[in-house]
Amino acid sequence: MKKIGKQTITFENPPSILETASIVGPKEANGPLAKYFDKILEDEFWGEKTWEKAETKIVRETSHAVLGKANLAANQIDYCFSGDLLNQSIASSFGLRDSNIPLFGIFGACSTFVEALSLASIFAESTGSNNLLCCTSSHFCSAEKQFRFPLELGNQRTPSAQWTVTGSGAAIVSKTGNGPFITHITPGKIVDMGIKDASNMGAAMAPAALDTLITHFEDTGRNPSYYDGIFTGDLGYIGKDILIDLAKKNGYNISSVYNDCGVLIFDKEKQDTHSGGSGCACIATVFSGYIFNQLKAKKLKKVLLIATGALTNATTAQQGESIPGIAHAISIEL
Amino acid sequence: MKKIGKQTITFENPPSILETASIVGPKEANGPLAKYFDKILEDEFWGEKTWEKAETKIVRETSHAVLGKANLAANQIDYCFSGDLLNQSIASSFGLRDSNIPLFGIFGACSTFVEALSLASIFAESTGSNNLLCCTSSHFCSAEKQFRFPLELGNQRTPSAQWTVTGSGAAIVSKTGNGPFITHITPGKIVDMGIKDASNMGAAMAPAALDTLITHFEDTGRNPSYYDGIFTGDLGYIGKDILIDLAKKNGYNISSVYNDCGVLIFDKEKQDTHSGGSGCACIATVFSGYIFNQLKAKKLKKVLLIATGALTNATTAQQGESIPGIAHAISIEL
Repeated sequence: MKKIGKQTITFENPPSILETASIVGPKEANGPLAKYFDKILEDEFWGEKTWEKAETKIVRETSHAVLGKANLAANQIDYCFSGDLLNQSIASSFGLRDSNIPLFGIFGACSTFVEALSLASIFAESTGSNNLLCCTSSHFCSAEKQFRFPLELGNQRTPSAQWTVTGSGAAIVSKTGNGPFITHITPGKIVDMGIKDASNMGAAMAPAALDTLITHFEDTGRNPSYYDGIFTGDLGYIGKDILIDLAKKNGYNISSVYNDCGVLIFDKEKQDTHSGGSGCACIATVFSGYIFNQLKAKKLKKVLLIATGALTNATTAQQGESIPGIAHAISIEL
Repeated sequence: MKKIGKQTITFENPPSILETASIVGPKEANGPLAKYFDKILEDEFWGEKTWEKAETKIVRETSHAVLGKANLAANQIDYCFSGDLLNQSIASSFGLRDSNIPLFGIFGACSTFVEALSLASIFAESTGSNNLLCCTSSHFCSAEKQFRFPLELGNQRTPSAQWTVTGSGAAIVSKTGNGPFITHITPGKIVDMGIKDASNMGAAMAPAALDTLITHFEDTGRNPSYYDGIFTGDLGYIGKDILIDLAKKNGYNISSVYNDCGVLIFDKEKQDTHSGGSGCACIATVFSGYIFNQLKAKKLKKVLLIATGALTNATTAQQGESIPGIAHAISIEL
């Protein structure tokens, strides 16, 4: 492993993504990617009494599912990297409470999944670990309650608002395996362009995505045409357009290979999610479901995955702060 | 670097802790460790309008301070690892917003500081990074407001309650340097023995500290007498006694070399903090101030640092959940 350029780390023995799993809620099951998810819930509670407990159960069951699919026992996992949007990452902590796996709790808002894959890759190549578990989640109802308005109020959502994905995605990163391989990571820095509208996260996060995108290209000497798929996490329709424009102004035309997981997961015409999906589970489920499937089927061979996070909370919004964005990128190749 | 035993990683070229810095509030300045901190605040606001903004400023200034003491510019730091107790780690995100350093946000409640040092050590040895910044914070007023009761209510605190440390500790971990060196890390797993009293965090976290302590000894073949100092993060008086008892029952007599940072930071007789200090800043400031000083002065030569975290929040407490604990250990040697 070595550092190249400003922020990128490249691997000599690229770690392999051994297996993925995903569980999603009923709204995601009505979207265009339904067939790629491992399990679909009939309602947002899954038999639990609260949304937080439901999200916790989703984390627990998704981590069980990925172990099952990889035919691994929990004691074959060296370390776990996990986080979510709930205060103090309780879905992860309670979901993995009984796992008996050493845990690195992480937080990058909706960028957490790629942060997990990045750290897991470093552990796989360097620490002598064989298998690392990465798992993140979000839940529409718990996120609305915590970040915006309780659903019971029936507030109207603005057109720029995004819909937090209910679900969890998990992946196992291994020292050995047949790929797809994580070949580079480009961890991002915080970028804050002063956006204060908590219902326009795409605009707040797009500049961070741009910063990481450009840094990745500069550090690696690559350009958009190197990849057959560039996916951001949850910029949604508005943020996606902003990123395409900003990239073009900086000399990178990404439009032919680029899409956003928040755009892909819901049907724009039929599902009324306004600017698309968001949440830690957005890129986690779309990657663990759809993108990983396309890689295994060799329909995608070189993917740049850029997860985007808004490092904000309800208190900072009330105190008049703007919304800092961050984006972490990894490149995944066959 | 290689993995030994169940959970421990040991380094071939142990990374060096180049420098530390600490800023604390007025109550900490009245405690027995006052002279070891770099800066002491006159009040809990430090000229800001809210406690959250004050904590943010503490993070920003502590990270500036450690760079200054190490004579490093921000662009000489490869990556930063940071987290805190506020919802969505906003003190870290806003405090480091203008740093221009790629950020891995992490969360291990009050164990976050040692989680940061652990990840930084791995990056220092393996990724080609030269310098890594670790920084965590907590603030008595923002923590009480968020986890327990608003201070304005004037609630009486129970005897088992601990006092969240106001402050921040930061360290720079480097590939090269003259030490002290991080020689081993033992990341912990979640342990939940069913404690539900949010005013008795020491009891909730002690079993996790025990688990990591025993695992560290088993993985390394060491025993308590190997170290001249074993420090837990914030078990306080009650948790400290529990850990000594539990360790003894498991065949390890730690009492002659062991203390807790939450016990050390306040004066039991004069300061009325009940069971002692707590918070992400407890071990962060006590290490960055007192323990690092003792290592540099060669008064301590072999230290085991075990940071303890309670992975809980106000919602889980209201929903009747118990308090999962976690503890991460690193061994630091001259």
